[in-house]
Amino acid sequence: MKVEGQNVLIEANASMNGGDGPQSYCQNSFFQKAGLEAMKEIMQKEIRDKFDVGKPSSNKSLTIKIADFGCSTGPNTFHAVQIILEAIQQKLQSETINSQEPEYQVFFNDLVTNDFNTLFASLPPKRQYHTAAVPGSFLNVVLPKSSIHFAYSAFSLNWLSKLPLEIIDKNSPAWNEGMIHYSSNQKDVLGAYAVQFANDFESFLCARKQELVSGGLVSVLVSGVPNGTCFSETSTGKLYEIFGSCFVDMANKGLIHKDKVDSFNLPVYFPSPKEIKAVVEKNGYFNIEKMEIPPNPTYQTGVPDSKKYAISSRAVYEGILCQHFGSEFVDELFKLFRKKVDETEPAIFLNPGKKNLVVLFVLLKLKPSPH
Amino acid sequence: MKVEGQNVLIEANASMNGGDGPQSYCQNSFFQKAGLEAMKEIMQKEIRDKFDVGKPSSNKSLTIKIADFGCSTGPNTFHAVQIILEAIQQKLQSETINSQEPEYQVFFNDLVTNDFNTLFASLPPKRQYHTAAVPGSFLNVVLPKSSIHFAYSAFSLNWLSKLPLEIIDKNSPAWNEGMIHYSSNQKDVLGAYAVQFANDFESFLCARKQELVSGGLVSVLVSGVPNGTCFSETSTGKLYEIFGSCFVDMANKGLIHKDKVDSFNLPVYFPSPKEIKAVVEKNGYFNIEKMEIPPNPTYQTGVPDSKKYAISSRAVYEGILCQHFGSEFVDELFKLFRKKVDETEPAIFLNPGKKNLVVLFVLLKLKPSPH
Repeated sequence: MKVEGQNVLIEANASMNGGDGPQSYCQNSFFQKAGLEAMKEIMQKEIRDKFDVGKPSSNKSLTIKIADFGCSTGPNTFHAVQIILEAIQQKLQSETINSQEPEYQVFFNDLVTNDFNTLFASLPPKRQYHTAAVPGSFLNVVLPKSSIHFAYSAFSLNWLSKLPLEIIDKNSPAWNEGMIHYSSNQKDVLGAYAVQFANDFESFLCARKQELVSGGLVSVLVSGVPNGTCFSETSTGKLYEIFGSCFVDMANKGLIHKDKVDSFNLPVYFPSPKEIKAVVEKNGYFNIEKMEIPPNPTYQTGVPDSKKYAISSRAVYEGILCQHFGSEFVDELFKLFRKKVDETEPAIFLNPGKKNLVVLFVLLKLKPSPH
Repeated sequence: MKVEGQNVLIEANASMNGGDGPQSYCQNSFFQKAGLEAMKEIMQKEIRDKFDVGKPSSNKSLTIKIADFGCSTGPNTFHAVQIILEAIQQKLQSETINSQEPEYQVFFNDLVTNDFNTLFASLPPKRQYHTAAVPGSFLNVVLPKSSIHFAYSAFSLNWLSKLPLEIIDKNSPAWNEGMIHYSSNQKDVLGAYAVQFANDFESFLCARKQELVSGGLVSVLVSGVPNGTCFSETSTGKLYEIFGSCFVDMANKGLIHKDKVDSFNLPVYFPSPKEIKAVVEKNGYFNIEKMEIPPNPTYQTGVPDSKKYAISSRAVYEGILCQHFGSEFVDELFKLFRKKVDETEPAIFLNPGKKNLVVLFVLLKLKPSPH
């Protein structure tokens, strides 16, 4: 289940923290939830306007199939599915296309290492849909041809499938020495990340092209930046910079080896609307029905709550940090991170230039295939 | 996800031991595997003879959908799916019904408490099918209407969804005092078990009736007894009797309370071909295409290997035993069980009357629904 790409070495296994304990993604995905909340109205309106499954033959029962690619362990995925389902129901009721009520089947997809047991344990008891979990990378085809009416993916495309080889190559101009992420000062590192994002998103679109019915919709939520802004210039980028400095501090104290820091990079990327548009247009299979940046959810402005931020970062990054540095290191790291955030001058985050991280909402429609 | 029935109180949560450690079902399901092996040839022949998905419209891609109801954690389910898939492929190749190769999608169903993470971790890497896991009791509809071509269930219908109320009612003639299972000497207990089995099997058939396409097949493997034989008279029944006596011994030693033994009963039942036939005919939705008792797998004859038997029983029953008695009790119980099996006169198991547990293979075909 790996996508072959150029210049890639390290596979990023981006499974969120499993279970439902205090460090779990399940309990600490409020940032992602706020992003989804901000998107609810526009997403529902767009579905009502654009969803079109065609007319089924009169005596055939219709099952509408929805898939969430990168669902993690819940509960956000259930909330998203409910939003989508309600909008589709409204649309179909207004059309009275069919005397029979359609059935719904929802496919929850994530990497095979995702904690699906926790997902299943927290399924809404009164759901109006049949449930299925689908393991495997969404960069590949994971569902039968022409079987899905509505595909959804929230914040999963921010994760790169692999890190570009050159950023850990000492002889490359893109070597990311002493850093754990890209910044606007390092054009080569930034470029390598951008290419990997574009490759992954392209693979995502090619796979969905196979799986979607003609006219099927893809709704993507992705954390991103306004055109012309680099992530490192945003409030959240400042936090990541502080986070990165913790690794260097710990190396300086001899708690981890400097080489370990040099070879570690966060496999996440925050694209701009322009980049998204370029990939969709190059790919050619989908029309962009809508691309919008709704008002920022409150968490992305103002001074961050260090505790909240440290816990939610941990739920997301603990897996890959443990893989690279070992688990004993992680407690210490997040303690230091909280301390440094608390000590940072609040003005750093207030960001008079309004360079904040944004959530991009993109709605794509599969073009009819030529016969 | 509960089926309402009459006279039932205790819900049996029949999840096998998860993970892949030394006590896991995954590592200790060799009895079930032998049962499947014994069935391979006849099952493949029957599929080649009876599988018929009809002619799809020429330009539409065909996805053949297979579901395993009660799949547990693997690996037997993967083996079974491979057997089914090969036979369907042979059938379709011989028919050249369609220029396009069909796709396959397999739905792995089990209770929501099943360890699906282990199932996913052990998926065959080179499989020829799309994978989906479906949580929920197979006594209910868990998949969309008319969506499945081939349903399979191996040894899961042996598990009762609930235990009959009367067997733990001190005032009932069916009170099962000091026993953990039914025997031919206690007609009322046996009858209560038999009714519950028939109710569960009936619910299974009603649910599959909804989910199967017209002409779809249901293949059931179930551990059972020849007509006219009670489970307690078989070699395996003798083992269960010894197993039951361990509980009484432990109560006599004061290690558990006698009431705890009186209120515990194994929620498993071993039907006869006659009972299976009666339920299918009463239900009325399916034709019996084949019902056969293939030659016994070797494990069901001769003197049992006490260690092997104790471990495999544990993988199956540990969950429900822990729920009722607490986990500290389980080690001691299986130690005693092994000891008592070793001390038993081998002649007890040699069974000159050939009253062995058998595996029943049943193939059902959904009758066309009247329009």
